[in-house]
Amino acid sequence: MNLPNTNPPTLDFWFDFASTYSYAAALRIGALAEKAGVTVNFRPFLLGPIFKAQGWTTSPFNLYPAKGGYMWRDLERICADLALPFARPEPFPQNSLLAARVALIGLHELWGEEFCLEVFRTQFGEGQRIEDAEAIGRILVRLEIAPGPVLKAALSDDNKARLRDQTEEAGRRGIFGAPTFITADGEMFWGNDRLERALLWASHG
Amino acid sequence: MNLPNTNPPTLDFWFDFASTYSYAAALRIGALAEKAGVTVNFRPFLLGPIFKAQGWTTSPFNLYPAKGGYMWRDLERICADLALPFARPEPFPQNSLLAARVALIGLHELWGEEFCLEVFRTQFGEGQRIEDAEAIGRILVRLEIAPGPVLKAALSDDNKARLRDQTEEAGRRGIFGAPTFITADGEMFWGNDRLERALLWASHG
Repeated sequence: MNLPNTNPPTLDFWFDFASTYSYAAALRIGALAEKAGVTVNFRPFLLGPIFKAQGWTTSPFNLYPAKGGYMWRDLERICADLALPFARPEPFPQNSLLAARVALIGLHELWGEEFCLEVFRTQFGEGQRIEDAEAIGRILVRLEIAPGPVLKAALSDDNKARLRDQTEEAGRRGIFGAPTFITADGEMFWGNDRLERALLWASHG
Repeated sequence: MNLPNTNPPTLDFWFDFASTYSYAAALRIGALAEKAGVTVNFRPFLLGPIFKAQGWTTSPFNLYPAKGGYMWRDLERICADLALPFARPEPFPQNSLLAARVALIGLHELWGEEFCLEVFRTQFGEGQRIEDAEAIGRILVRLEIAPGPVLKAALSDDNKARLRDQTEEAGRRGIFGAPTFITADGEMFWGNDRLERALLWASHG
């Protein structure tokens, strides 16, 4: 007997915390997904190994200054249109390893998505660093999470392996940048500007 | 005495005929610009020298296969959404030098924009080559333009220099890809997905 599938449609949201356009996507996705009736899975990963496989040792926005200069101006306009604060972190890109490890812990509990948004706001809304335990600890405290046990769990071998697996999965799925949205039927959309189309695909095909 | 500026707002549309996303932009820009009350200037140029300056010997979509594979699927979806025909030309990218030279002749006469659209349709709607005098000649004939004198003018030293100047201007303006839209006040927007925002900027700031 085939019962109709009554599960809500889902969308995987792949991002690296250091990714500028992921900031806009992360801050937009909650309200848009709710409106579309789509459940979003936050999938933090590391772009570093993926860029390295393409022969890049840093962000392409640093390697190609014309493109980088444009990106900062474009992001500034996008944030102005969305009434989102915008400030450029120094250095760019920030090392997002610890933030991603902590996010994986949070996403197994109830505070993961709020943590992700707060990391993005801190970095690209306030222009603050997000690289070290002190910065991440301050964000956790703001969310009323005790940093000690979380940071310890984040640095466990199991959790480190989890992030490596997630990053390897991103590579296997053909992800080459962030943000990337993937529907349950495997359709891939790259870029903040594709978020609406991805949600439509997830809910209607 | 300062008279109010009653000229309609303008937008420069920079494109390379070999650029896939320029196809969608070229086919969309006429109706959208008319609706926005914006006059569009078609500015064909060559991406080749600009890519070369970034160390690339061919399209980044060929250099980075994951990105290239995604682009073809993305373009296919975009064309489906717009009910535009889509077919992939072989080889990709096509050499767009002759098409750009002929377009410059046409844009000094009355048939330039229609020629540009027809080159894009032939290449990405029908998957045909656009590289040689025979292919360009067929497109001119379809537009009821006699190819002989046009091809001769296109290959004149003056016209060759005009295209070189246009491409150098693109580089000076910081253009690193196509399509790129630049407003009269110098605001730059890159990508087919930025066309609506560029028109809005041109007409309202």
